[in-house]
Amino acid sequence: MANDPFRLTATDAITSIAAGALTARALVESCLERTAALEPDINAWAHLGAEQARAAADRADAQGNTGALKGVPFAAKDIIDSHDMPTGYGSPIHAGAQPFADASPIALARAAGGVLLGKTVTTEFANLTPGPTRNPHDPSRTPGGSSSGSAAAVAAMMVPLAYGTQTTQSTIRPAAFCGVHGYCPTQGDFRLAGVREAADTFDRLGLIARSLADIALLRDVLLRRPAAPFKLAGSPPRIGLCRTHLWESFDPALRSDIEAAARRLEAKGATVTDRPTPPAFERLAEAQRQISAYEFVRNFAFEIDRHWDRISPQLREGRIKDGLACTYERYREALAEAAAARALVPDLFEGVDVLIAASAPGEAPIGIQATGSAAVGALWTPLYLPCVTLPVFKGPAGMPMGLQVLASEGQDDRMLQAARWIEATL
Amino acid sequence: MANDPFRLTATDAITSIAAGALTARALVESCLERTAALEPDINAWAHLGAEQARAAADRADAQGNTGALKGVPFAAKDIIDSHDMPTGYGSPIHAGAQPFADASPIALARAAGGVLLGKTVTTEFANLTPGPTRNPHDPSRTPGGSSSGSAAAVAAMMVPLAYGTQTTQSTIRPAAFCGVHGYCPTQGDFRLAGVREAADTFDRLGLIARSLADIALLRDVLLRRPAAPFKLAGSPPRIGLCRTHLWESFDPALRSDIEAAARRLEAKGATVTDRPTPPAFERLAEAQRQISAYEFVRNFAFEIDRHWDRISPQLREGRIKDGLACTYERYREALAEAAAARALVPDLFEGVDVLIAASAPGEAPIGIQATGSAAVGALWTPLYLPCVTLPVFKGPAGMPMGLQVLASEGQDDRMLQAARWIEATL
Repeated sequence: MANDPFRLTATDAITSIAAGALTARALVESCLERTAALEPDINAWAHLGAEQARAAADRADAQGNTGALKGVPFAAKDIIDSHDMPTGYGSPIHAGAQPFADASPIALARAAGGVLLGKTVTTEFANLTPGPTRNPHDPSRTPGGSSSGSAAAVAAMMVPLAYGTQTTQSTIRPAAFCGVHGYCPTQGDFRLAGVREAADTFDRLGLIARSLADIALLRDVLLRRPAAPFKLAGSPPRIGLCRTHLWESFDPALRSDIEAAARRLEAKGATVTDRPTPPAFERLAEAQRQISAYEFVRNFAFEIDRHWDRISPQLREGRIKDGLACTYERYREALAEAAAARALVPDLFEGVDVLIAASAPGEAPIGIQATGSAAVGALWTPLYLPCVTLPVFKGPAGMPMGLQVLASEGQDDRMLQAARWIEATL
Repeated sequence: MANDPFRLTATDAITSIAAGALTARALVESCLERTAALEPDINAWAHLGAEQARAAADRADAQGNTGALKGVPFAAKDIIDSHDMPTGYGSPIHAGAQPFADASPIALARAAGGVLLGKTVTTEFANLTPGPTRNPHDPSRTPGGSSSGSAAAVAAMMVPLAYGTQTTQSTIRPAAFCGVHGYCPTQGDFRLAGVREAADTFDRLGLIARSLADIALLRDVLLRRPAAPFKLAGSPPRIGLCRTHLWESFDPALRSDIEAAARRLEAKGATVTDRPTPPAFERLAEAQRQISAYEFVRNFAFEIDRHWDRISPQLREGRIKDGLACTYERYREALAEAAAARALVPDLFEGVDVLIAASAPGEAPIGIQATGSAAVGALWTPLYLPCVTLPVFKGPAGMPMGLQVLASEGQDDRMLQAARWIEATL
C-alpha cells in the first residue's frame, strides 16, 4: 500500500516514469482504483473520464512519455471546457453540455503529456451553492469551495494535480481546508480561454497539488516554458507577518500557530517583521463583492433570463440580487477603490520578499451546506498578488489549516522558492 | 425604396415600432431581403439565422415589443457564442461547432428584446487571415478586419447593429473602412463570457452601427441599465488633436481632412489644442504585439497542438511564431511598458475632454487578401481608452475614412456626447 502509485506527487511519479519504474497506464489505474474506493464517501467528481484517461495513458506510454508531465493524470474543475468530456458548471442548466474544444489550461497540460482524468465538482457557477463534495479529512465537513472537488480529489490522493479557479477565495480556501497546496498566480499570468468567466476583474486559474514542486512544474506547463528544476531559496527570506484587520475573527489556535511559525522562521534565519495592512484594505471586501456581483449578472445573462427557475435560491438571493442592484457608477467606484488599494501594495513589501498570513479563518466548518468564510480572499484577491497556501498546521479538531504566502505581482517564482524554505523550516 | 425599413437606424426603427408604424417581423423581413440582394457580392455572413430571427421577431411583436430593443435585429461576429446558431471562429477547425449557451453580449441584447439575425464573418480566430467579405463601398477592397462581416453588414444596411471585437484594431478599422460608426468601451466595461478569448489583456467587445444614438443605446443594453435618451453635449468640447508619431504615414488627404476638421470645430466654438503623444507611445506597438502573441498561442493551445494543419500559414508564420518566441520575461516586460504608457495618459487629457485622431491610415486598401494596417490600433488599444470612429471623411478614391474620438477611462458617456457634437458640426 505504501508504494501505491496514487500516493506519488506528480514530480515523483514523473521521476519514476522517466526511470522506467512506472507507466502512465499503471499510474492512471492506481488513481482510478483509489477513486473507486473513496469516491462514494467524497463525491469529488462531476465526470470521471476513465476510458479516455486509460487511452491517453496508453498513448503516452507508447510514445515514450514525452513532455514535462509524461503521462501523469490531472483533474479540472467543471467550469473548464474539455472537448471529450462534458462541462456542467455545477448547474442543472448546463448538465451534460459538451464543449467543442479544450480550454487553454487543459490543452496546455495535454500538450505537455498530461492525462485528463475527469472534471471535478464545482459549486454552482463557481459561486456559493455547494455540490455534494465532502472533506476527505472528515466527511461531515465542507471541503471548502468553489473548487471543492479539485481540492478533495487531490487531498484524497485520487489524482496528484487539479485545476481550480479563484474569484474570491475559491482555490486557497478549499486547498487549506483539505490540507493540500493551492496556488493562484499573479493576476493575468495564466490564460483562461474556455474557462467559464464569472467576474473577470478577479477570475484566476488556481493550481492544487500535494507539493510545491508540483505547483512549480504545472506553472511552467501553463506558461508553456521548459520545466525548470524547482530550487530552494538560497537564503532565508525576509518575511512580513500580516495579521490584517481580520485577525480577531480567526480561530485562536490558528492565530497562535501563525505566531509560533513566525518565531520559528525567525529562529531559523528569516527576518520577520509585522506588516499591518492599511485601513483602506478594510473596504476591499465590499468593493470585491460589488465588482464580482456586477460582472456576474452580466456574464450569466443567458442563465438568468432563460433558466431562472433552475438557479439556486441562494445564488438568486445573493450574488444575482447584489449584481442587479449595483449601478454602473457604483461598479466604477468599486474598481477605483480596488485600484487605490493596489497602489498601496508596494509599501507593504518594502524590505520584505514575501508576506505570510492566514489562508482561511480556521478549520473547515462542519456541514456541507456552505463552503466557509471567504473573508480572507475578499481581502487579498483584489490585490492581484500571487499566493500559495501551505498545509502546515492542524487545528483543534485535527483538521488541516493553511499558512498563506504572498508576493508582489510577477514574483511568483521567487515566492514559490521562499514558500519552500518556509515549508521545509516548519 | 427610401422608406424601406432596412434603412432605419436601430433608434429610428424602435421609434417606429413603439408608434405601431412598424413590426419587428417586417423589419427582419426587410433586412433579410436586403441581405439576399447584396450578400452574394459582399459575403458578410458566416451563418444567417433567418428562421430563428423570424420566430424571435414574431414573439417580440406578440409580446408587445418590450425591452429597449423592441424586436430590432442585430448581428454578432462569429467568435461570439449563440445557443441556437453555430460559432465557427473563421476557422475550418471550428466550422459548424454549436455552443450550448449565448455569450453575455448576445444574451443581454436578447433580454432587451433584440433579435439575433446571424453570425458575421471574422478573420481566422479574429487575427489576420481574412474571410471572403468585401467592402460594400467597393467590392474590390477589403472591409478591414477582424470584424469584417459586422462592419460590412451594417454598412450595407443588412442589419442596423452588430457586435465586433477588438484586440488591436479590429472594430475601429473595419468601421472606418466601411463608413460606419464603431465603438470600443473603456477596457473591461463590457463582459466577454462566451466571447472567444484571443489576448485578454486587450480583448474588448466593439459595437458597430450607423448612428451614435444606436451606439449609446446598445451600450446601455450591455451595461444592463435603463436606456437613457442620447443627449448632445451642452457645450462645445475641449479637444486635443493627436497627430501621433504615425502622422507622416497617413494618407495626405486624410491629414488635411483632419486638420480642416480641427479648424472647423474650433470655428464652431470648440477649443482645439495640439497634443503630441509622448515618445514612449512609439514603443507601444511592439509591446502590444508581444503581449498579444504571447497570450494568443497559450489561448489557442488546443488548435495549435491538435489541428496545426488546419491553421493558415499566415497565422502560423505570424502571430503563432511570435508567440512561441516570446518568453515569459519579455511578456512581463511588455506588460510593464504598456502600464508605464498608460500612466502618461492623464497628462494627455490635461485640460481637454476628448482627443481626436485618425481611425486608420487612410482608405480601405484594394484587395481582400489583407485587412489593412493595424498601426493606429496598436498605438491606442494598449491605453485602454474608450474610442469611437465617425464616418465623416471621404478619401481620394471616394472611400470613407474615419475620425477617431477618444476619452479618458470611464468617460464613455461624455465621449459619445462630445462625439455627437463633433459629428453634427462636421
